[in-house]
Amino acid sequence: MKPKKTKHIHSASAEKIIAKRKKILQAEDLISKISNGNTTALSQAITLIESTAVKHQQVGQVILKGCLPYSGNSVRIGITGVPGVGKSTFIEALGTHCINKGKKLAVLAIDPSSSISHGSILGDKTRMEQLATNPKAFIRPSAAGDSLGGVARKTREAIILCEAAGYEVIFIETVGVGQSETAVHNMTDFFLLLKLAGAGDELQGIKRGIIEMADALIINKADGENLAAAKKAKTAFAKALHLFPAKASKWQPRVALCSALENQGITSIWELIEEYLNLVKSNEFFAENRKNQNKYWLQTSIENALKDDFYGNAEVQNQLPKLLGDLNSGKITAFQAAQELLKKAK
Amino acid sequence: MKPKKTKHIHSASAEKIIAKRKKILQAEDLISKISNGNTTALSQAITLIESTAVKHQQVGQVILKGCLPYSGNSVRIGITGVPGVGKSTFIEALGTHCINKGKKLAVLAIDPSSSISHGSILGDKTRMEQLATNPKAFIRPSAAGDSLGGVARKTREAIILCEAAGYEVIFIETVGVGQSETAVHNMTDFFLLLKLAGAGDELQGIKRGIIEMADALIINKADGENLAAAKKAKTAFAKALHLFPAKASKWQPRVALCSALENQGITSIWELIEEYLNLVKSNEFFAENRKNQNKYWLQTSIENALKDDFYGNAEVQNQLPKLLGDLNSGKITAFQAAQELLKKAK
Repeated sequence: MKPKKTKHIHSASAEKIIAKRKKILQAEDLISKISNGNTTALSQAITLIESTAVKHQQVGQVILKGCLPYSGNSVRIGITGVPGVGKSTFIEALGTHCINKGKKLAVLAIDPSSSISHGSILGDKTRMEQLATNPKAFIRPSAAGDSLGGVARKTREAIILCEAAGYEVIFIETVGVGQSETAVHNMTDFFLLLKLAGAGDELQGIKRGIIEMADALIINKADGENLAAAKKAKTAFAKALHLFPAKASKWQPRVALCSALENQGITSIWELIEEYLNLVKSNEFFAENRKNQNKYWLQTSIENALKDDFYGNAEVQNQLPKLLGDLNSGKITAFQAAQELLKKAK
Repeated sequence: MKPKKTKHIHSASAEKIIAKRKKILQAEDLISKISNGNTTALSQAITLIESTAVKHQQVGQVILKGCLPYSGNSVRIGITGVPGVGKSTFIEALGTHCINKGKKLAVLAIDPSSSISHGSILGDKTRMEQLATNPKAFIRPSAAGDSLGGVARKTREAIILCEAAGYEVIFIETVGVGQSETAVHNMTDFFLLLKLAGAGDELQGIKRGIIEMADALIINKADGENLAAAKKAKTAFAKALHLFPAKASKWQPRVALCSALENQGITSIWELIEEYLNLVKSNEFFAENRKNQNKYWLQTSIENALKDDFYGNAEVQNQLPKLLGDLNSGKITAFQAAQELLKKAK
């Protein structure tokens, strides 16, 4: 028995070593291909990062580390707006314009609701026929996940991989579920809000705080019978944006009209973005902002882990409903209830 | 030796029991006096809550629990604006109006900077001479503290005590340091932003997001030569506020002019607040909002405790600067850095 057992152990160790070496080789191979702009390798790496399997995640993290030195050299543009505002058509129009200007473009999406709706509509290649067949465009459907934290992490990682693959412009699209606009705002250099003229924000489902985040407010479908209303909306919003406190970037947010369908106004929107980039690169806000974003995601990741741990505690889950009840019926203060729960989690 | 030692233990136990009984008696005495509207007792209880001594805090928490059943029956009004906007004069004018309408008024303040500036200017009684001598007003200077979390907790607890003492209107004032406006917004029923006409928000130091929080935007010092500019600002802001998404309260935020110094416009501001209260009490937002605020403070207290614990960890403090450096030089992703730190804290 003894020799066999030893042999078995040896063979297991050997297998482990081989598996590990295979992983490293796989990672090195993908890193090299990605940095050469190979889109198949890029897709594979994103799939590894998004995978729920631990062994995939491990390879994914090695690839990420290897890609980091090649990353950072892009302009990250966040695009948001409610369904029906024409995001896909807008992305096709602006994206094609970028490519015509000689840029390589990646389109990513954040949609934490995709796990609920079983399949995201965002980033769907069929929505962007022109871009989907353009060799200088890379379109990746939204990462799936049941928490915004998880989806945001995967998107941030996909950005790094796309940058390593040489994509110079990256669009990150969101439909605005939960706090997803805030997440996109915190991972992009420029934040663009698409709106329609006429309809009130309530009808458009835009959440409070989004307008203040925007670097540009684009009124889409400014064509035909809509044009007059769009022009009026532009004036109103331009005045309103001036009443806001100044941004840390020193950029004065702009309002612009466009008709993505008729390809009107797209050139000036791209010029506006370039003007912004010139400003924030010369006043160093661009680099400062990315530093702050890194810190934000470091802290957010830590806080999410701490909260998951705390609220996942059986004793906490057991006591929380009763304490919330006591809190709402005025038997205990919020701070006293928190102390009780913190004691339970110890 | 033996009897002596036993005697000593006995006497120590006895002292402990006596001390505990004294605490309970002290607490019961203060609860009873507070619920009868005794302002000396109210001041003493707030001092106990604000104390850094554990024995005081313990009595304070017992008093709080005892006061909770008498609390909740007030209107909590948050008032913010940069220094120089005329907050004290405004509070004197609006406060005196409330009292003339038959209400009892308490004025509290949040100023997390007070520990830095060694003594807060907020809530200073000498700033509000009229109210300070009015028997129906209770003015309490800002709680001291080096963290917003701590100061916010003490202010929330002071609100409960004031309500138990029969104060029907509570003003919570803030100068807007750090995130203090958000804290005040999350502990009040109505949020009022004081502004001056003319000066840009940048000059006024108003932070982004504050305007969207406001239920009313009051342009103060609308008198004499300022009046024309104030009227113009009113129109501009009224238009701008209409462009914002609707509030959960269904309340359309208002802009109003006033001259606190000349006591102009104060009556309509109070009517505006009453109109708001009628709306949110009939559509049940008032109660719902307070419930959400309770939950918010429960969660915030927990998260602050978890973060204090984590960032207080010696290993974390040791590794954080190096990891932040690696993060900013692109050697590691934010999520990888977070994982490293979370491992260290285990």
